[in-house]
Amino acid sequence: MTRIALGLAYRGQDYLGWQSQPGGRTVQDRLEAALSRFADEPIRTVCAGRTDSGVHALNQVVHFDTVRERELFSWVRGVNRYLPADIAVQWSAMPGDSFHARNLARRRRYAYLLLESPVRPSVEFGASGWVFRPLDLSAMQAAAALLVGEHDFSAFRAAECQALSPVKTLYSVHIGRRGAYWRFEFEASAFLHHMVRNLMGVLLAVGQGGRSPAWAGEVLASRSREAAAPTFAPDGLYFLGPRYDEPLALPTHTPAMDWLPA
Amino acid sequence: MTRIALGLAYRGQDYLGWQSQPGGRTVQDRLEAALSRFADEPIRTVCAGRTDSGVHALNQVVHFDTVRERELFSWVRGVNRYLPADIAVQWSAMPGDSFHARNLARRRRYAYLLLESPVRPSVEFGASGWVFRPLDLSAMQAAAALLVGEHDFSAFRAAECQALSPVKTLYSVHIGRRGAYWRFEFEASAFLHHMVRNLMGVLLAVGQGGRSPAWAGEVLASRSREAAAPTFAPDGLYFLGPRYDEPLALPTHTPAMDWLPA
Repeated sequence: MTRIALGLAYRGQDYLGWQSQPGGRTVQDRLEAALSRFADEPIRTVCAGRTDSGVHALNQVVHFDTVRERELFSWVRGVNRYLPADIAVQWSAMPGDSFHARNLARRRRYAYLLLESPVRPSVEFGASGWVFRPLDLSAMQAAAALLVGEHDFSAFRAAECQALSPVKTLYSVHIGRRGAYWRFEFEASAFLHHMVRNLMGVLLAVGQGGRSPAWAGEVLASRSREAAAPTFAPDGLYFLGPRYDEPLALPTHTPAMDWLPA
Repeated sequence: MTRIALGLAYRGQDYLGWQSQPGGRTVQDRLEAALSRFADEPIRTVCAGRTDSGVHALNQVVHFDTVRERELFSWVRGVNRYLPADIAVQWSAMPGDSFHARNLARRRRYAYLLLESPVRPSVEFGASGWVFRPLDLSAMQAAAALLVGEHDFSAFRAAECQALSPVKTLYSVHIGRRGAYWRFEFEASAFLHHMVRNLMGVLLAVGQGGRSPAWAGEVLASRSREAAAPTFAPDGLYFLGPRYDEPLALPTHTPAMDWLPA
């Protein structure tokens, strides 16, 4: 029995999120079907971070156990042959039997891509969020600074969130832009359900001038979902993947990451 | 009667190209349906450059005549309400009754986006071409230099091409990259049918080392389609739009253009 780790990129638009469901229209269902076919045995996977319906991933990490002996790179090339065109294994590794894709992830990163334009998305439909009002960078940066740190993020947590604790550490929020596209990048110990989309809702309410930066701190302190802005659209959300301890030496960059414009 | 010009961006993946067909699954059919609904009269359009099945556009320009008097920007916002999510009008203008989107276009620009990676596309499926062998930039630049200028481009012309003459001026070929993605940009007086995809076939045969740069010049001189490489995939091809004479002052940049990674 060998434990294999894979890095995965996918376009989430046509899937009901990561987690397996009876209908089978999830990324996990498609991946396990492809793995099982390639390995010729039933394979179940554990992932680093379950993505919602419509959310994309550029370095989702999974692990699984198998009795099949295959060349390491054939877990990339061979499995990709059985995956749909919008999902592809990016790399494979043998990190040892005690590796666990979720439990050993120390940090996770997400990016949100956002078109700021009077005109809605078209070529990038489903791959980018959209605001038509101009955004104020320094106001958003001031708001983000109030959210960074170890906090009870209950105000940014979906009702159906299954996390044991609402206390997480938000290490950084970077905001940049290139032309009409903004990129928001979040790194945290872990994220609650809908946390990034709820953070985006608050940052954009501030960025568009409807709220002051200080309001972001008030929302956080309230620990109440009702205080915050609506959950923002999943379209522009990309799971950039987990970070593990250095000795594991698992890739944190994939070629697919270079696709993002900003 | 007023002549209106529009700039259009679309993702070509789900369409049978620009030109109207009985089945209706073309960009022109969708645009004319939306325009006719918004204007409440039948509207027919003329475009700057007909794109093939699967090819995208970031600033396709069209013109049409209408008796409806509408605020200029409502030809953007109002028409977008009736267009599918992967097509959007970017701008509107009134360039005068003698404007003609195709006949007055002095130059046209195309970009080709290409993933160079051992792993096939996933998030960018349909939006990027793919090669798995490393490309040699200076070899491709040397080959491109032999193609720039006024030439008979018959060797790069599809059998079904309807252009009156195979003689066109290729003004420039720029090749750049960012991370795993290459961007090839072509500017010419006009392009023959499949010309960019055939140019890509030749440049990539050189870039991957199968052919010498000088071979590109031999293909050109042969004026024979048989001498060239296979027509490359439409996936990464973007029509960046036409250039008109300066006094017309029509936009040559759209927000959608900033989406391209390289």
